[in-house]
Amino acid sequence: MAYSPLVRELMEAFRCLPGVGPKSAQRMTFTLLQHDRAGARRLARALEDAAQSVGECADCRNLTEAERCPLCLNDRRDPAVLCIVENPSDVQALEDATDYQGRYFVLKGRLSPLDGIGPGELGLEALEARLQGGGVREVILAISPTVEGEATGQYIAQMARDAGVSVSRIAHGVPLGGDLDYVDAGTLSHAFAGRGQYQ
Amino acid sequence: MAYSPLVRELMEAFRCLPGVGPKSAQRMTFTLLQHDRAGARRLARALEDAAQSVGECADCRNLTEAERCPLCLNDRRDPAVLCIVENPSDVQALEDATDYQGRYFVLKGRLSPLDGIGPGELGLEALEARLQGGGVREVILAISPTVEGEATGQYIAQMARDAGVSVSRIAHGVPLGGDLDYVDAGTLSHAFAGRGQYQ
Repeated sequence: MAYSPLVRELMEAFRCLPGVGPKSAQRMTFTLLQHDRAGARRLARALEDAAQSVGECADCRNLTEAERCPLCLNDRRDPAVLCIVENPSDVQALEDATDYQGRYFVLKGRLSPLDGIGPGELGLEALEARLQGGGVREVILAISPTVEGEATGQYIAQMARDAGVSVSRIAHGVPLGGDLDYVDAGTLSHAFAGRGQYQ
Repeated sequence: MAYSPLVRELMEAFRCLPGVGPKSAQRMTFTLLQHDRAGARRLARALEDAAQSVGECADCRNLTEAERCPLCLNDRRDPAVLCIVENPSDVQALEDATDYQGRYFVLKGRLSPLDGIGPGELGLEALEARLQGGGVREVILAISPTVEGEATGQYIAQMARDAGVSVSRIAHGVPLGGDLDYVDAGTLSHAFAGRGQYQ
């Protein structure tokens, strides 16, 4: 083995990153050690700080080091509208693409009993208490339309109806710029059944 | 902005890695924080330790935290044969592919006067002293055949000849499994001119 122990350890440690194989890990190691030690130190500090301090928001379960995340602390956002998403990255995607001004709730997963992921793992008891509490007027489901996503959506929709809260979900259909020829049959059938008045 | 300060800082810190854009940085951040805090801490420690302690081998300039790298400390490797490579990763590539049993010298770059990279930056004074010292019998050039690589190779070859050391370089030609149709003209011309006896 041509590498010294610390160099080898760094190469192996990079493998915990998603999408990083042996070649990328080697490239990252050499690039940082040869050209960017300051970047390496900054990344080390950022990793250590985040791993140490980042927990989840008491309201929406999004990742944050404070008790509540910036969006839940923002008074100008309507707490009566709640958008349910699967992942923290979905929150940013919606913030970038829409002018939504309500709050979020991050499931961090989908119901999947076979993998041991039940309502408790997704924080659905807390969500139910919040819906029953009466502060929420509308729930918007922005969950991906997979089998498990649909099951999760139905479970939450039932909870919302039981609490007398109206439920909507984001539209599924042909993506903008999409060619009908290349859209799968399930999406096309959804888009056809969900057609709206031509404006 | 939907991210808390520590999460945002981690996302930005990941951008120092080669080939990592905003989307990959986001994915790495969420994957580590949601599923692999132990991996994040290990990576933080490995980065900190390596950035702190890894320097270069006093003999071959390869990356190592010790005074000399494992290959230069290996008594069974012939110190009279010296293979010159550009990068630390080339050492591992040659170790994996060949049964070479000599030593290496890592340039960490190529002569490029316009970028301010001269013989000093590549450690060529030390190399010259070593060649003049008389302990080296053969120099093998394993430098990539670019314009700057060729210039660097010629410079080192001249140094070796001045010291009475024989010089060879690795063969350039059609790669194994390569289709003649798809090989560029320069490579094909090299391969034709450098043809050897059919065995």
